[in-house]
Amino acid sequence: MKLYDLEISGNCYKIRLFLAVLGIEYTRIPVDVKAGENKTSEFLEMNPNGLVPVLTDGATTIYDSAAILVYLAKTYADEEWLPGEPIQLSSVVRWLAFEQSEVRYGLCRARAKLLNMPTPLAQLGTLEDSQALARQALDILEKQLTQNDWLAGGLKPTICDIACYPYTAMGPEGGVSLQPYTAVRRWMEKIESLDGYIALPGQVRI
Amino acid sequence: MKLYDLEISGNCYKIRLFLAVLGIEYTRIPVDVKAGENKTSEFLEMNPNGLVPVLTDGATTIYDSAAILVYLAKTYADEEWLPGEPIQLSSVVRWLAFEQSEVRYGLCRARAKLLNMPTPLAQLGTLEDSQALARQALDILEKQLTQNDWLAGGLKPTICDIACYPYTAMGPEGGVSLQPYTAVRRWMEKIESLDGYIALPGQVRI
Repeated sequence: MKLYDLEISGNCYKIRLFLAVLGIEYTRIPVDVKAGENKTSEFLEMNPNGLVPVLTDGATTIYDSAAILVYLAKTYADEEWLPGEPIQLSSVVRWLAFEQSEVRYGLCRARAKLLNMPTPLAQLGTLEDSQALARQALDILEKQLTQNDWLAGGLKPTICDIACYPYTAMGPEGGVSLQPYTAVRRWMEKIESLDGYIALPGQVRI
Repeated sequence: MKLYDLEISGNCYKIRLFLAVLGIEYTRIPVDVKAGENKTSEFLEMNPNGLVPVLTDGATTIYDSAAILVYLAKTYADEEWLPGEPIQLSSVVRWLAFEQSEVRYGLCRARAKLLNMPTPLAQLGTLEDSQALARQALDILEKQLTQNDWLAGGLKPTICDIACYPYTAMGPEGGVSLQPYTAVRRWMEKIESLDGYIALPGQVRI
């Protein structure tokens, strides 16, 4: 298994984290995004959008972090990480979608702007808009995590916890404090206690 | 089955369309969002985010359009609408996530701004940003649909086609022309030919 990877990217970190928690060995292939290695014809054949992460597993190529988490869970993990039962599966997909929505355009975008990340997202809109949406995202997470240990509402973590964790935990790198969000911080600590947990890239907390 | 619904909402329309294609009878409960009916304590108990659509099915309550599509597909539809095979499922989730990302913050947001929709999304960022992201979304869709009949890459439509169709087809209501996107328009026609298809709310085409 090969992961086309960028150290600083939270989307790549999601995959590294899940692989580490599952105890799966893989080869990490750093992609020099600043040098345009994600825009070569070889890379675009793997992901036409020219974005990391990309995972290859034998003849299979998967791009997009949510899609990779689904593939890994269905192929290599216990069902608890991606339950097949309709209500539970719909809940996992809801929070994967939330991650691509409020989390991406709020928390992730604010960080991309402040760190001057080499991604189109960093060019979109203003820092103030991003931070406002980041706080909306944290409000929604706080509400859910006040009533539930894990995002999808079950007794065990699922891939949507893995998906939502990185950009939430790196909120302060986008100028968004996590101090007011008690339940979010408790949930983060639980993720950080998972067997196999690996540290975030260059984490700044609170 | 009850759908808490707003006629003009593309997210609600996704559910009405899928229910119609599946031939499922349901009761439509209009929610007067302008009058704040989505902020009452009864409504917030169903969806803490105070947004339509919400579906109830017996004792089960599901909110968020992607989550509702997953629930309906897993509970009432043939497996082709949401395949369980890892690569296919990951592809469906990729495009559901894309819908909540570029489609939502591009096509949907541009429309929300121009139609002055009663949703927080209409307040976020500028029209120009929204339209630029809308064109990025259409470029990505065009690339995928030039090589594939359906978004997830299989021979039949899945719930990610249902999810991506409404705000794409309503692009012109956000000031974004679909004229340059031949493959996208061909895909839209195929969706519009599905048995049970129902018309978009107040559609403006090209």
